Amino acid sequence: MFRESPREPTHDGVLRAAGKIAALLPPTPLLPIEIGGVRIHAKADVLQPIGAFKIRGAWHRLTDLTPHERAAGVIAVSSGNHAQGVAWAARELGIAAAIVMPADAPKVKLAATRALGAEVILYDRAGGEDRDAIANALCDERGRVLVHAYADPWVIEGQGSMGIEIAAQLGREPSRMVVCCGGGGLAAGLALACPGAAIHPVEPDGWDDVKLSLERGEIVRVGANPPRTICDAIQTPSTAPINFAVLKRRAEPGVSVSDDEVRRAQRFAFDRLRLVVEPGGAAALAAALAGKVPLDEGTVVTLTGGNTDAEAFAAMLEATAG
Amino acid sequence: MFRESPREPTHDGVLRAAGKIAALLPPTPLLPIEIGGVRIHAKADVLQPIGAFKIRGAWHRLTDLTPHERAAGVIAVSSGNHAQGVAWAARELGIAAAIVMPADAPKVKLAATRALGAEVILYDRAGGEDRDAIANALCDERGRVLVHAYADPWVIEGQGSMGIEIAAQLGREPSRMVVCCGGGGLAAGLALACPGAAIHPVEPDGWDDVKLSLERGEIVRVGANPPRTICDAIQTPSTAPINFAVLKRRAEPGVSVSDDEVRRAQRFAFDRLRLVVEPGGAAALAAALAGKVPLDEGTVVTLTGGNTDAEAFAAMLEATAG
Repeated sequence: MFRESPREPTHDGVLRAAGKIAALLPPTPLLPIEIGGVRIHAKADVLQPIGAFKIRGAWHRLTDLTPHERAAGVIAVSSGNHAQGVAWAARELGIAAAIVMPADAPKVKLAATRALGAEVILYDRAGGEDRDAIANALCDERGRVLVHAYADPWVIEGQGSMGIEIAAQLGREPSRMVVCCGGGGLAAGLALACPGAAIHPVEPDGWDDVKLSLERGEIVRVGANPPRTICDAIQTPSTAPINFAVLKRRAEPGVSVSDDEVRRAQRFAFDRLRLVVEPGGAAALAAALAGKVPLDEGTVVTLTGGNTDAEAFAAMLEATAG
Repeated sequence: MFRESPREPTHDGVLRAAGKIAALLPPTPLLPIEIGGVRIHAKADVLQPIGAFKIRGAWHRLTDLTPHERAAGVIAVSSGNHAQGVAWAARELGIAAAIVMPADAPKVKLAATRALGAEVILYDRAGGEDRDAIANALCDERGRVLVHAYADPWVIEGQGSMGIEIAAQLGREPSRMVVCCGGGGLAAGLALACPGAAIHPVEPDGWDDVKLSLERGEIVRVGANPPRTICDAIQTPSTAPINFAVLKRRAEPGVSVSDDEVRRAQRFAFDRLRLVVEPGGAAALAAALAGKVPLDEGTVVTLTGGNTDAEAFAAMLEATAG
């Protein structure tokens, strides 16, 4: 399913990505919050221009394309945030982009990706279509480069730039990062960025393939009939060898969170941080609030995305009332 | 109604305040937005620890109290954001604070002020009680310093620190600042901060006393039966001489916005910036979106507060659907 990677992601690559990102975008805020009497920080990457951290990896990948590759264009696969990251970077650089997206992605994500000028190709996630197979076929057919959402060394390094920013903002390497985890691109990138930090991947209940993979020491896919989750952004069937190679060395045991725990985290972000955080972007905060990960003063939780339909957000506010 | 001020606010005072704020709090993001094809910026002061810019003036004022004044404590008057600013600064500095607040203030603002350790004294805004008279009497009775929400040179200078931050972030003085305006503390502070910038005060329809005062060249109070407004934070009956002295020299003609225009701005901030902005904090953006102020590439709109009850925010999302 995953194509072989041309190289491994490295700490130096993360630093190079961080330099490119710093020249492009101001650092997103690192906001103090208090949970159970412990003062930690939340990294507000929902404030990126596309409303998600995915702009980092996309920028690092697309700016490293050869002139020939730029002319051919790129293909990406995404439930919506990586789609917008690739579409944004492609528009800035004048590169053609086609994105394979699930037909049931949030409407705001489909609309935003199209508004950025990308071609959107829908697939049937619920029906079990293999999005990577569709994308690989498109790449072969059009002679384009695949920009995978997580199984790509540039994407991993680019996401890792968040860790370099966090360390600069804290004035020291964080002791612990609690990370929203789909395919493991951000978790692997942060592990490479901050060699001394404990990395806690957080997944939705029933979509905890990284947690299971870490327990078994080999990549495990989610089961045949996974439950529904509101965390569309991190609803990923499995991690990839290039991500797992980093995570199996570096990650702490994984944890998973329920939809209700995620909604409580979204509400916390609304009340205390005045931030709109989508479900998948609130998973790490949910784990911290639910007491599922240890917290100390050097802990940072990632708020990775804020692209949510208004109806879903209003329903969350109602569900968490009182 | 307003006590005589001990001194005038100055540009140097704004710079001194900006230095104190910079040592305390990281700059809030200056986010690019596009309105009608013009790329402007929004200053996200909703991301301050108390969710509003009022922390600036409160910090500048309380840190300049004499030891005797610190020991006696402070009194403030506020619909909620200045209350939290004073309560936050007082807690940090170990100063007793009592805040006179309208009984109909948003519940989140009353709760947050109490949570910061301040004593809350309620008054009947709807019934027309004079909050300044209550506060002045309390100051005399307890021998405390009044920290007025806008009629105070330190408060004006402290709010003005936002302008110094904006200029540093833009790399030049903004050409134009569109400012949510209640009593005129922020508008006067920004005028002092950026002597070359056009200052556009924005008020709620029917609460446009600053607009009328600028037109007539003298301070005018709102009419006897002003309409309801959702902008509780800037529902202020009149500006004060110390503010008007600056504004009559420096402000552009005032504009006012309707509740519907404000809701559209809140929705824009939700969709495009992933920020929770309260009605009064969205007034400047509302004026920009409604075409009521000129826009150019050096324009900055202030997003001044994000403290809103969840039910009101959900209702806004529903009202702005489709």
